[in-house]
Amino acid sequence: MIETPYLLFLGEAPDQLAAKVAQGIKDWRPEFAVGQFRMDGCKADMKLTDMTLDEALEAGAKTLVIGVANRGGMISHEWRHVLAEALLKGFDLASGLHNLLSDEPELVEIAKAEGREMHDVRVPEVDYPIANGKKRTGKRCLAVGTDCSVGKMYTALAMDAEMQKRGMKSTFRATGQTGILITGDGIPLDAVIADFMAGAVEWLTPDNDEDHWDLIEGQGSLFHASYSGVTMALVHGGQPDALILCHEPTREHMRGLPDYALPSLEELRDLALTLASRVNPDVKAVGISVNTQHLSEDEANSYLADLEAEFCLPAVDPFRHGAGKLVDALAAFD
Amino acid sequence: MIETPYLLFLGEAPDQLAAKVAQGIKDWRPEFAVGQFRMDGCKADMKLTDMTLDEALEAGAKTLVIGVANRGGMISHEWRHVLAEALLKGFDLASGLHNLLSDEPELVEIAKAEGREMHDVRVPEVDYPIANGKKRTGKRCLAVGTDCSVGKMYTALAMDAEMQKRGMKSTFRATGQTGILITGDGIPLDAVIADFMAGAVEWLTPDNDEDHWDLIEGQGSLFHASYSGVTMALVHGGQPDALILCHEPTREHMRGLPDYALPSLEELRDLALTLASRVNPDVKAVGISVNTQHLSEDEANSYLADLEAEFCLPAVDPFRHGAGKLVDALAAFD
Repeated sequence: MIETPYLLFLGEAPDQLAAKVAQGIKDWRPEFAVGQFRMDGCKADMKLTDMTLDEALEAGAKTLVIGVANRGGMISHEWRHVLAEALLKGFDLASGLHNLLSDEPELVEIAKAEGREMHDVRVPEVDYPIANGKKRTGKRCLAVGTDCSVGKMYTALAMDAEMQKRGMKSTFRATGQTGILITGDGIPLDAVIADFMAGAVEWLTPDNDEDHWDLIEGQGSLFHASYSGVTMALVHGGQPDALILCHEPTREHMRGLPDYALPSLEELRDLALTLASRVNPDVKAVGISVNTQHLSEDEANSYLADLEAEFCLPAVDPFRHGAGKLVDALAAFD
Repeated sequence: MIETPYLLFLGEAPDQLAAKVAQGIKDWRPEFAVGQFRMDGCKADMKLTDMTLDEALEAGAKTLVIGVANRGGMISHEWRHVLAEALLKGFDLASGLHNLLSDEPELVEIAKAEGREMHDVRVPEVDYPIANGKKRTGKRCLAVGTDCSVGKMYTALAMDAEMQKRGMKSTFRATGQTGILITGDGIPLDAVIADFMAGAVEWLTPDNDEDHWDLIEGQGSLFHASYSGVTMALVHGGQPDALILCHEPTREHMRGLPDYALPSLEELRDLALTLASRVNPDVKAVGISVNTQHLSEDEANSYLADLEAEFCLPAVDPFRHGAGKLVDALAAFD
């Protein structure tokens, strides 16, 4: 668990997109972001107050979060200098970079001497159990996709935000590095040892109030030859009551697999329900979430209306239209 | 890759069952077993020549393989003494124990000084790639089960042995620790990082002659809530042409999951074909392998005859009847 609130470290981000972790925190957990720290040449701006380390400490920040992807995969001399100073001043550090903070001897030494935590969120910090498949209390909603990167995390975060607004009981459960940095907690599922994947998901989504919903971040796709095993563990470990089917209608092939066409939403629905019913016979598909960024407003509306007619399920692009209809489906769930 | 042949270390095995790794090597790769090393009180006997370390070296042994499970999960003082001496005399070591050889500082030091290898086969020794899903040449047969521990490894080993006898081109591809120790090679799939599972299976079963069959050892079950993700990675990474459906008909619930009934062989066939067809549209179920150890000979024969009629597939217990019928199915495959 990462201590909040954060100072968002943007380094010398060449553009806004390079700082998408910081953007995610700003969008979904603005209360966690007390300010931003930018270095010379930084072109990203979260519209937060620029702060020195001291100013951020005074504003209550506990953790410096690396909110930017670095170029070349190395932690540069300049970065290391800032990170070391942050540790010395009393910050914890959190990072989702491929190259780990724990592989930086200087930072490790300072963190140890100062009693500070360094979180490499790509690396599991917990010894997860083997899954036991036992029925848990509370409700769980899992986003599954026809492909990777079709908006599963966005959908779950948007639903959680809408549910909070309505005063419903919900928790977004992060299963990837960006989600973990946004919320300060979760499991880096793709980095878990194979035998413990489903157990990690059970651990993440424990017993809860009967009217509480876990909104579980999806990973990969049951149809993706590289990552389907991770998705399978989410479906069986997550024990979902409700599935949201996620799709990007203009994609020409599976991400990273030029020889593979996307499955249809119908195939996704049927396979995901078949698999999920193994651990929860009452599971239902309750909604469809479509990333329509490459469609015009008219095209998007017409596409979604067609889906609603075909599947008898609410179909929305939560980015364009909000997640209200999907939350309505959970509110009406029985 | 573990250097062969082996001296089989049986320690003070309390009974034959405790030495099942050694038994597997003796049964399936007798040419790898030059002798056995037993300590005081050992009750297991592989019917191999009892040898000292020196005698085994003289007989050509390259690796001392720990062929026995140890009690209490510790490498005892007595074991450590033998293992250290083996390293000093020029043996490599190989072990599938939970507690690792590489966690024994004394052994690590000797191995390093002597230039010897220590193989903990529970730990991946390779950085596996991400799966790419590309069609590979050669043929692949995967054993899938209604549950864990229903005879998938045995089935694949028995088919491989029969194919070798017939002069067919085949390779048993180990995906678990016992299989790796038996054959000296393979991937410890349940210990691989989630993102790389399917890639590890692709790596294990590369391009090959068009008339060559990889017989891939199955793991877990698509219906097992704890391990289904591992099985999914095998199905997608293995890109099977042929599936063998494995079953144990008297089991009352899924192994380790008292609340879960076993699926039917029909459910297994349908789900495994649906999933495998994603990576190989021509995949077929070609045979059924049943562990009939808890049935009488008559019961077994009648059960298998019923399955053959119902599924129009050969159904055998390879332990009782050999794997001939299953191999016939591969020989007739087109």
